[in-house]
Amino acid sequence: MPKKIFFTPGPSALYYTVEEHIKSALKAQIPEISHRSTTFQAIYEEAVTNLRELLALPGNFHIAFVASATEIWERLIQNLVVDHSLHLVNGAFSKRFGEISAELGRKVSVYQSEEGQVPLIKDISADEAPELVAITQNETSTGVHFPQENVKALRERFPDAILAMDVVSSIPTTIDFDSIDSFYFSVQKCFGLPAGLGVWIYNDRCLNKAETIREGTQSIGSYHALPKLHASGLKNQTPETPNVLNIFLLAKVARDMLDKGLDMIIRETNYKSAVLYQMLEQHAKLSPFVKDKALRSKTVIVADVDGDSSTIIDPISKKGMIIGTGYGPHKKSQIRIASFPTHSKEQIELLADQIALLS
Amino acid sequence: MPKKIFFTPGPSALYYTVEEHIKSALKAQIPEISHRSTTFQAIYEEAVTNLRELLALPGNFHIAFVASATEIWERLIQNLVVDHSLHLVNGAFSKRFGEISAELGRKVSVYQSEEGQVPLIKDISADEAPELVAITQNETSTGVHFPQENVKALRERFPDAILAMDVVSSIPTTIDFDSIDSFYFSVQKCFGLPAGLGVWIYNDRCLNKAETIREGTQSIGSYHALPKLHASGLKNQTPETPNVLNIFLLAKVARDMLDKGLDMIIRETNYKSAVLYQMLEQHAKLSPFVKDKALRSKTVIVADVDGDSSTIIDPISKKGMIIGTGYGPHKKSQIRIASFPTHSKEQIELLADQIALLS
Repeated sequence: MPKKIFFTPGPSALYYTVEEHIKSALKAQIPEISHRSTTFQAIYEEAVTNLRELLALPGNFHIAFVASATEIWERLIQNLVVDHSLHLVNGAFSKRFGEISAELGRKVSVYQSEEGQVPLIKDISADEAPELVAITQNETSTGVHFPQENVKALRERFPDAILAMDVVSSIPTTIDFDSIDSFYFSVQKCFGLPAGLGVWIYNDRCLNKAETIREGTQSIGSYHALPKLHASGLKNQTPETPNVLNIFLLAKVARDMLDKGLDMIIRETNYKSAVLYQMLEQHAKLSPFVKDKALRSKTVIVADVDGDSSTIIDPISKKGMIIGTGYGPHKKSQIRIASFPTHSKEQIELLADQIALLS
Repeated sequence: MPKKIFFTPGPSALYYTVEEHIKSALKAQIPEISHRSTTFQAIYEEAVTNLRELLALPGNFHIAFVASATEIWERLIQNLVVDHSLHLVNGAFSKRFGEISAELGRKVSVYQSEEGQVPLIKDISADEAPELVAITQNETSTGVHFPQENVKALRERFPDAILAMDVVSSIPTTIDFDSIDSFYFSVQKCFGLPAGLGVWIYNDRCLNKAETIREGTQSIGSYHALPKLHASGLKNQTPETPNVLNIFLLAKVARDMLDKGLDMIIRETNYKSAVLYQMLEQHAKLSPFVKDKALRSKTVIVADVDGDSSTIIDPISKKGMIIGTGYGPHKKSQIRIASFPTHSKEQIELLADQIALLS
């Protein structure tokens, strides 16, 4: 049976080179080596070096490996917030981050837009003074993009806060390092790796803040406290036995992406999203959920369905292509299509053609 | 080049069926499926069912999947200790657990034996009333085994405390469920899987205690708070996107171990450890680090080396067999040999013969 193509928004299709890299890893016995060996340190260094180059990371930004983006939400709060975080909510995942902060006992301010839009800076109460401001660049649940000019405006409004951005379904992309202090992602979406690894990128401000909190009475956690992750990272190691295989795969896929070129990846992403949105605009039963074009995610495309989402999902599935349901309450009324770096222009064109036939 | 055989105490050799299971997983596109799909739920259920059978788990014990045994240390303290934990230390890892509790702001009592021994219950101060007592069945750093009768005595001494046992390098084995409330392991040692998954087993007492703490003012964490893990587990899901591939592999390897039979695994473990200790007793340059035979781990065998550990490790490595250095300060003065279920009797005999030749 030919393999299915997963256009689901995470986990999604593996990056097209991953299967070969897994076979190489098994041949080289990577899962069997010690995480304290020089062989592992070389793999760690390769992953960090390739990611730094791919993301054009400035010297004051650092990379740590944890288990998931969900873990990073918890670590951001533990390490960077004594009392108060502020969350701009453009979908279910940005909302969930706020809930995690509350579960950890912090005071939480939540600004939520109407569905399909983003909360505006001008709506934020004048007396807010959060230690951390959380935004989500591309919401995987709604396909709502948080525009770069809004990020810049947030930085101006909160110059002293840590600005943390979820890039879980937008990376690799260009990042405005002057506006952002931390950004993070899990690897099973845009990087097309098996799930089980989170990548946390943070600058010196974050590290200093964590060290300052640690000097007080509040715990910043234990094995994954930021200063501990940072100190281990300087030795190309992790505090615990990590997901060695995934760090190896990340090193390899980041290299493959570098060989292709970030410019090319971004150009293709633009083209593929144009194909998908154009199809949706012309479709009798489908329409883009996000009306404002400036707010449309180019990597997770969400559409309202006239009728039940299964009337689109099921026939497409029979063609060997798996697309996502709507998220949460929209499960039956929306579809979600991932257009990640592993998805070729031809695959997206084929998918768009097949969905168009269901008009 | 023929593959090396890893006798290192973790990560160690992959279970001999793992490579084929990884290939099957790729063929079935397991890393690409949604962690909210019924396909994933079936995999989760299979892993739990097989583990329950392998460990002969009673109905009041439950299984949760997290990222590592190190994470489980943090979650045990967050969820089960408001104020005070007590740690019986027989090596570096049991010691580290105590440090994690302290980093999380708890009061910590540590009872540490002389090296190569276990702390005795009679040495514990009469006024100790910890909420959690931590023990390590087989210390991976020292090869010191914590005997079952001492566990029983601990239960009598602390009937109201949670007794938590690290079984990271002893599982699968028979567990005295009347003495223990929680036990846990990571999968890269005895189960021979790639690293990146921790298995936390807990009984209803643990769950009740976590729920009681949650009702107070202290946070029990967020996405991996025990009640949340438990509620997700009842739906055969995890709160976050987990290491799907490893949960799949765990289901398969647990089934392979069941097919072999726990009795057979234990019998072989006994035989293999006898071969190794006998070789050590007769060796001119090596001697078992643990003198008391009742305290000798059968899965991680630690030996003092007369001279530098490299004089043993290097020539054995040239034969294609990788054994571990000593841990921490003993790096150059000891060797560590893992004898896990994946290591066949023939492999252990071969290793023992080759080391004996270095006498």
